[in-house]
Amino acid sequence: MTAPAKKTVLSGVRPTGPAHLGNYVGAFRNWLRLQDEYRCFYSIVTWHALTSEYANSRAIRDYVFEVATDLLSLGIDPAKCVLFNQSEVKEHAELHLLLSMIVPLPWLERVPTFKEQQEELADRDLNTYGFLGYPLLQTADIIVYKADVVPVGEDQACHLELAREIVRRFNRLYAPVFPEPQTLLTEVPKLAGTDGRKMSKSYGNAIFLKDTAAAIKAKIAPMVTDTRRKRRSDPGEPDDCPVFTLHRAFVDPARREALAADCRRAGVGCLECKAVAIQAIIDLLTPYWEKRAAFEKNPRLVWDTLEDGNARARAAAGATMIEVRDAIGV
Amino acid sequence: MTAPAKKTVLSGVRPTGPAHLGNYVGAFRNWLRLQDEYRCFYSIVTWHALTSEYANSRAIRDYVFEVATDLLSLGIDPAKCVLFNQSEVKEHAELHLLLSMIVPLPWLERVPTFKEQQEELADRDLNTYGFLGYPLLQTADIIVYKADVVPVGEDQACHLELAREIVRRFNRLYAPVFPEPQTLLTEVPKLAGTDGRKMSKSYGNAIFLKDTAAAIKAKIAPMVTDTRRKRRSDPGEPDDCPVFTLHRAFVDPARREALAADCRRAGVGCLECKAVAIQAIIDLLTPYWEKRAAFEKNPRLVWDTLEDGNARARAAAGATMIEVRDAIGV
Repeated sequence: MTAPAKKTVLSGVRPTGPAHLGNYVGAFRNWLRLQDEYRCFYSIVTWHALTSEYANSRAIRDYVFEVATDLLSLGIDPAKCVLFNQSEVKEHAELHLLLSMIVPLPWLERVPTFKEQQEELADRDLNTYGFLGYPLLQTADIIVYKADVVPVGEDQACHLELAREIVRRFNRLYAPVFPEPQTLLTEVPKLAGTDGRKMSKSYGNAIFLKDTAAAIKAKIAPMVTDTRRKRRSDPGEPDDCPVFTLHRAFVDPARREALAADCRRAGVGCLECKAVAIQAIIDLLTPYWEKRAAFEKNPRLVWDTLEDGNARARAAAGATMIEVRDAIGV
Repeated sequence: MTAPAKKTVLSGVRPTGPAHLGNYVGAFRNWLRLQDEYRCFYSIVTWHALTSEYANSRAIRDYVFEVATDLLSLGIDPAKCVLFNQSEVKEHAELHLLLSMIVPLPWLERVPTFKEQQEELADRDLNTYGFLGYPLLQTADIIVYKADVVPVGEDQACHLELAREIVRRFNRLYAPVFPEPQTLLTEVPKLAGTDGRKMSKSYGNAIFLKDTAAAIKAKIAPMVTDTRRKRRSDPGEPDDCPVFTLHRAFVDPARREALAADCRRAGVGCLECKAVAIQAIIDLLTPYWEKRAAFEKNPRLVWDTLEDGNARARAAAGATMIEVRDAIGV
């Protein structure tokens, strides 16, 4: 009796700068879990970064290094998964081009994020051919590894629906080369940034993984809590407290619930309560900081790991492309 | 004093079947001339064939062989030029993807041939992402070899205008990597098919290069001439005679003008006149047929020539792509 083959996972991260706690709870924490159970391909999606950053592209290579260093320091393990740079695996570009021939324009024009993101990033001119093709390139990213599952938040589920539609069209026109990638819906806890809004690099409210312990304390200590709690003696409501989103993400449940109860009966002060979250974050990041320091001393190690991952990704994608070209007949 | 470097030419042919006389006078006759004066890259554009033939793609590989055999038999000489298969040079796909990030959608939507061809090929569903991107892929085809000039008919001049616009945008955003490709306007004589309409494979009225002498005679002999010439004794007007488009393309000018004068005073019969065109075509194609027979006996020769061309094209395109990636910073 042989063990059932591991299912394949594909997930990607845009290299747009150092990672923050929101990236960690939204994606990387899941990546760490998934690498033990699945055959994982983790892609630093350089070409996707270009869709919005084409006019500010000079920093992308540094950002690839930043995010790779972040991931390896967090414990993403090349012995368990394939970590690679999308733009070094040209098979993605070839498959994207081949798929473009069979994908009706309205399929892409109808993707809800197309108009939304154009409005959100109104300072950049995103009415480009490549921006319209973004979900098509994502489809190529996923299916070139014949991924079975893709971890996505609910807002990205529509992209995966499109990927399945494209897979069905390809398989029907040519040959059943691709499995339909399934959604692995992941819980993405809302994490507040230092100004109480959603943590995001573009809001300037992010706590970065590579921030020092002192920087983290300095960022969290002045954060506004539940605004109804004007005095230490006023009871508070953790569900209305931005800082408590950090507790939900990083403090163990028993400790967290005790703090919540204390808050509701004014039994704990906000500074004391914040200190618990700060310590939990520092405990989480301490091993990361140690590994990161080692990688920063020896950046070649990061590039070598990526190059090895690129080669393994190319081998897997190349095998798929042989089937794809045979199926189409080119 | 060194001789000035040869300018680079890029031209392409879609592999959609064996070549006919219209392809010869419209493109290949120029290719034969150009290979002596320029550094020529001649591309069999397999991916472009997929834009319209994606649902009938199984024949494309045979057609690549057909058109390569046609070209080599006509005298396209791998010692003078690079003859290659676009889909074996992945750099075209990578550059197409990178350019897609900086090309505004309206630039592509405005290309006149986009709507025209959709209407012309109404039996196929061409409202695809790839069909919209057709001129963008053409741009990548051209500039990845830093082509200086591109031989085009007037109907394609708008595509080259777009290519120059894209080059200017790339060079301004990143670095001056690409020259602006110039139009080498080529005379494309109108050639009538056997039914008097423009010769075209899709009309079923084509005289193929690989037709036998007997087949060519059988196709031309029954062709309608100037309809006002009902009897041998009626004078005719060569300018209104579909067959005379063959004379203009293949019969030497002195002989042709003498025939025209004879026609206008009823001094020559249509059959006799046709025989001159038929003989000129047979004389033109006789060496082609001999070479073709040799290639058909040894198809490996054609594939090997293409593979050698693919490698040389990859080397040239690869050198450009190093500059492109450096300029963008990926």
